[in-house]
Amino acid sequence: MGGDFGPAITVPAALNVLKTETNLNLILVGDQETLMHALRQYGGDVGPRLSIHHASQRVEMDELPSQALRSKKDSSMRVAINLVKEGRAQACVSAGNTGALMAISRFVLKTLPGVERPAIIYALPTITGHTRMLDLGANVDSSAEHLFQFAVMGSILCNSVDGTERPTVGLLNIGAEEIKGNEQVKQAAQLLAQSDLNYVGFVEGDDIFKGKVDVVVCDGFVGNVALKTSEGVARMVAHYMKQEFTRNALTKFAAWVATPVLKAFKRRIDPGRYNGASFVGLQGIVIKSHGGADVRAFANAIIEARIEVDHNLPQRIGHQLESLLIQRPAV
Amino acid sequence: MGGDFGPAITVPAALNVLKTETNLNLILVGDQETLMHALRQYGGDVGPRLSIHHASQRVEMDELPSQALRSKKDSSMRVAINLVKEGRAQACVSAGNTGALMAISRFVLKTLPGVERPAIIYALPTITGHTRMLDLGANVDSSAEHLFQFAVMGSILCNSVDGTERPTVGLLNIGAEEIKGNEQVKQAAQLLAQSDLNYVGFVEGDDIFKGKVDVVVCDGFVGNVALKTSEGVARMVAHYMKQEFTRNALTKFAAWVATPVLKAFKRRIDPGRYNGASFVGLQGIVIKSHGGADVRAFANAIIEARIEVDHNLPQRIGHQLESLLIQRPAV
Repeated sequence: MGGDFGPAITVPAALNVLKTETNLNLILVGDQETLMHALRQYGGDVGPRLSIHHASQRVEMDELPSQALRSKKDSSMRVAINLVKEGRAQACVSAGNTGALMAISRFVLKTLPGVERPAIIYALPTITGHTRMLDLGANVDSSAEHLFQFAVMGSILCNSVDGTERPTVGLLNIGAEEIKGNEQVKQAAQLLAQSDLNYVGFVEGDDIFKGKVDVVVCDGFVGNVALKTSEGVARMVAHYMKQEFTRNALTKFAAWVATPVLKAFKRRIDPGRYNGASFVGLQGIVIKSHGGADVRAFANAIIEARIEVDHNLPQRIGHQLESLLIQRPAV
Repeated sequence: MGGDFGPAITVPAALNVLKTETNLNLILVGDQETLMHALRQYGGDVGPRLSIHHASQRVEMDELPSQALRSKKDSSMRVAINLVKEGRAQACVSAGNTGALMAISRFVLKTLPGVERPAIIYALPTITGHTRMLDLGANVDSSAEHLFQFAVMGSILCNSVDGTERPTVGLLNIGAEEIKGNEQVKQAAQLLAQSDLNYVGFVEGDDIFKGKVDVVVCDGFVGNVALKTSEGVARMVAHYMKQEFTRNALTKFAAWVATPVLKAFKRRIDPGRYNGASFVGLQGIVIKSHGGADVRAFANAIIEARIEVDHNLPQRIGHQLESLLIQRPAV
């Protein structure tokens, strides 16, 4: 039900994914009548692979997570996560309120043993492919220990989902300071250097998009700012380009000639290509779609969930985290 | 002498600026012989408006600030800042090592009374014009009080240099947390809300480039990551665009037709347009040019220095900070 557009996006996306992913079954969670209506509107219907699970409430996009947790026990978000907890669904995908989704996921599913804080991880496009970055906003004031755990979880996800052997891990830092960075980052660097991870050192903001490492680790405040900033720049660049190409008849002609190139370019910077942030560190799979995702982008978030199910991601993180934490030297 | 290219950039930039800014005199600080050679190479010479001040050492780009401070007492950087201290120059412009430049500036010039930490402020392009953001890397672990002081200094600079009456101030934050952000940001928001500044509230990473506020305030770690990230995205987008337009004969033809549009677009996202970060909070004007600046970008950094001199920026910040700090409620 969530996101900026609700079932107008999620329902057609679900129908599209069912066509391409033939081993996948979906449960739409939300107001039965609204969902049934949307299903019919987009030429679909319930059946053996698609069902509706009624939920009488919804979490609003600006609702406080604590309030959603306390007073929205029959919200689509809560009910969907309950289905994962009960093993009736293997993953939950939502475009709704991020804070509420994290709070409810954490409360219902619980963190994996040894995980102090779950994190949000997301694939960002780079010049060479993509890089996975975490945390993107689940935590602020992360300690060195938290940053270390993020690195472990990011590394396992990258290995499982992307198939990368020994993914390279970089710690996001700044270059201008005396002995670079703040205390937490410096201590995390020591933990990482002594670990079994393929830690390659500090990376700076501009290294993210060079594809210098497979996994970029940072505090959630920093990561969220970096993510939103990069979205802002991409949007501004697109705005400038549109302005320049629509300035007059001549520039419009140039745009017409360049249409295939501009389309190819647009596809490459399309944020929907990489939609679907994962909540890692939980005993269950929860994928957060961008609130403003379109049909194709939301479909990508569903596919991301499916990939993580195929790889038993939480179990793998749980196992490997346990063995890594045992090997880990004391801070 | 500094930056990635040394006198090959700084000398022709100085010569160009002298032609357009007729009330400006420049002193080139560095190795006399090298500078004289570069001057002649670019068709210039010393004269009443352009002199050379010899310095026997140089701070390397990767040198530790503390080491530069201790052992490079005759470096071009140190000598140039000494000239400002002695009143023989009104501003120092450098493309060198940022950390060393800040450490030496702080040591030689001292901070303004009441200023706990100087900050780095820079103009970033937005959809509507530009916004000034600080701190961009001089500080990590900024307290609420530091963030408040950054807001005051940014506000005064924006008022003086851009002529903006009561500049709007936003505090960089994230949206995903319960009661948004970390402790420092929450406390700084309280200080700002009770102050005389035109504080409009929290902004997120993507708001920076919307031009939502005139001044964006943040900790230096966060600001540096945001700045570098935005540079990285812009570079990636340019890379993608080049790839798409050079893919084959057809796309190259499209690029040829679109040349004027692409040039206009390039001008708009050109980072050199806004080159010249200011160190604010010091008893003197120091401008840091991007290390990789080209001739035009370095010239812009010199012009930024000139504007700040015209506005007596440090004195204005000093006066207004004093009165604002007196009015300021206790934390």
